[in-house]
Amino acid sequence: MANMSVTAAKGFTASGVASGVKRSGKLDLGLVVCPEGAKAAGVFTTNKIVSPAVEVCREHIRRGKVYAAVVNSGNANCCTGQAGMDDAVTMCQVLAGEMGIQPGQVLIASTGIIGEKLPINKVKGGIFSAISELKDSGAAGDRFAEAIMTTDMRAKQAMRQFKIGSKVVTVGGTAKGAGMIGPNMATTICVLTTDMDISKGLLGKALRDAIGGSLNKLTVDGHQSTNDTALLLASGAAGNKPVSKQGTNYRKFAKAVREVCEDLTKQMGLDAEGATRIFKVEVKGAASQAEAGQAARAVADYDLVKCAVHGGDPNWGRIICAVGSCGVRLKPEKLTCRIGGVTVFRNGQPTRFDRKKVSEIIGQQEHVISIDLGAGRGEDFCWGCDLSKDYVTINADYHT
Amino acid sequence: MANMSVTAAKGFTASGVASGVKRSGKLDLGLVVCPEGAKAAGVFTTNKIVSPAVEVCREHIRRGKVYAAVVNSGNANCCTGQAGMDDAVTMCQVLAGEMGIQPGQVLIASTGIIGEKLPINKVKGGIFSAISELKDSGAAGDRFAEAIMTTDMRAKQAMRQFKIGSKVVTVGGTAKGAGMIGPNMATTICVLTTDMDISKGLLGKALRDAIGGSLNKLTVDGHQSTNDTALLLASGAAGNKPVSKQGTNYRKFAKAVREVCEDLTKQMGLDAEGATRIFKVEVKGAASQAEAGQAARAVADYDLVKCAVHGGDPNWGRIICAVGSCGVRLKPEKLTCRIGGVTVFRNGQPTRFDRKKVSEIIGQQEHVISIDLGAGRGEDFCWGCDLSKDYVTINADYHT
Repeated sequence: MANMSVTAAKGFTASGVASGVKRSGKLDLGLVVCPEGAKAAGVFTTNKIVSPAVEVCREHIRRGKVYAAVVNSGNANCCTGQAGMDDAVTMCQVLAGEMGIQPGQVLIASTGIIGEKLPINKVKGGIFSAISELKDSGAAGDRFAEAIMTTDMRAKQAMRQFKIGSKVVTVGGTAKGAGMIGPNMATTICVLTTDMDISKGLLGKALRDAIGGSLNKLTVDGHQSTNDTALLLASGAAGNKPVSKQGTNYRKFAKAVREVCEDLTKQMGLDAEGATRIFKVEVKGAASQAEAGQAARAVADYDLVKCAVHGGDPNWGRIICAVGSCGVRLKPEKLTCRIGGVTVFRNGQPTRFDRKKVSEIIGQQEHVISIDLGAGRGEDFCWGCDLSKDYVTINADYHT
Repeated sequence: MANMSVTAAKGFTASGVASGVKRSGKLDLGLVVCPEGAKAAGVFTTNKIVSPAVEVCREHIRRGKVYAAVVNSGNANCCTGQAGMDDAVTMCQVLAGEMGIQPGQVLIASTGIIGEKLPINKVKGGIFSAISELKDSGAAGDRFAEAIMTTDMRAKQAMRQFKIGSKVVTVGGTAKGAGMIGPNMATTICVLTTDMDISKGLLGKALRDAIGGSLNKLTVDGHQSTNDTALLLASGAAGNKPVSKQGTNYRKFAKAVREVCEDLTKQMGLDAEGATRIFKVEVKGAASQAEAGQAARAVADYDLVKCAVHGGDPNWGRIICAVGSCGVRLKPEKLTCRIGGVTVFRNGQPTRFDRKKVSEIIGQQEHVISIDLGAGRGEDFCWGCDLSKDYVTINADYHT
């Protein structure tokens, strides 16, 4: 199988180890390194309570080149007070000291339980092991992807390649996240690498634009975590002519980043806690794009819709109920709803439709719910997933 | 047992029958009658899509005295187009014709599945039966309460009495609702009666104020239905000195209405689909009362908090996460959280607390989560309930 991971692009090595933070003994610390130094871009949670890891990471990206990014899972190091900030700083210092670089050239991210002190000695040991196991292989990238997982059932990876002249450019990486996922920033941790030679400004723009249309459009339970972090590191090792303007070559790159993010978004929706399928809510005819997005998210977040999708139940009344109560402008007499292309409600009136067929559509791995509010020209969309008993099982006892 | 129902107040008769709209054969049509005519007040859904029953009911309350209110369950008669409006009008006409009153003197409400045509002939038959079974007994009131249920497991009733001079005044009634419950108007149907002699203006004020602090403060799944209706009918049969000003006697009445509504609200929370317990989220230190309410609701609506409550898990990090991501102003360094009086997070720092004790608190029938945002003097609260596997079971297959 092709290398789909953070080591797919030239100029990166990676590893994933078990530091002992996860009591299960599973991999829980991932390291990705760019020995020649990488330009870095990041997008972070807008939650008002953030992990010290996020504060540190934001600051280090501002400063300049980075050589390594370390991610620990099993503990979010959030709401941990001054000790938490100390631990975040220690993570950078230990990694930098061992690699002979500056602490400010290191990025960090943490994910897992909120409010428990990070077992920093275990993390330190994990960093030492991770450095010793760095490799540029696909297997090493796979271990990185596995090490950043929390309640995820499967590692999520995606990769795209394109050419600039004769040079192949690669964008690849991984994302984790299975709950506490809601726009904006529908992920907890996403780490992407590329060998594109591109300016830092355009690198950031490509990442922001890609996430706006992908990870920010997925909702699992409507909330954004305190630790959400998406990183994109560029080694420049592809050897392409450097790109610093928004021309054809930038667009190729932006498209690749977007496709990788979309791919990861769908994988995350399907692997959401307890989820068995995903659905896309497309809203048009809204008074504004913002209201279209608001309505799409209201439907995708509504537990009764999520349960109906789980049951393969064409209960479109719940969709209409969510749209009507979410505060957006609409014309009841023009309101129209389709499920998988089948019109179930047209201009405010129910239609006769083939329930069995629509039930089959809903039962597929993914389907589309389309809503026309009849109130304007605003359009937007949102991805959601079904709500199952397993979501409750996973989350009623996660802590203990 | 005391009569707690819509027949507790003098001047009312009631009944509940099985019309056949519910295929299970359970009671599904309730009728309450005030032979001498009642003043009526109503509070309705703010969903932009409403049942024709709501439109008709609103209009008839505006007009003047009402003599009867009929509620059918099993079918919401919503999103049913012109046929739905025709059916709503027919319900009024049939009842009025049989009772020798005007259609405009009848109130109606419907609750159940959205988007299916009302089986109007069954409803007509039910209305005839219900008229023939009218009684002023507690048992008849109980049957009314049972007849308006949908997925409710238990009928909910409450009653309060107080004195004006030597006259005993009674306020009693019932509410149904187990899902699709979110502020504002945390119910689908609530029918209250009183024998208070009071002006129509104050009757409406007492109902609105009571609901603002009770049914509007409960969230089960964050959405308001298309059919939410709360009615308060006043027969004036208590014989008290008529009240038309906001003095002592009005305050006694308003308090009784509020207590009945609060009682019903808690019963609804505990009977919410799949719920095993309820919790109250109290927010203070907000920049405004509106932001306090927004934060309280964000916590009460958050599936991860609801799952943690279900599991008796003191996972306060999820509470902090919800507060941080809901958009309200807060001071992270002042943020404080208590569960059942135990401080689990103080001034942005985790505390050492007795996990076993807090787990026991959460495991009780109800507990309080208190949050201080440290950003101002705004206060508000919200009631929520836990999220269980049964919620999913009930709602994945409700339709089919």
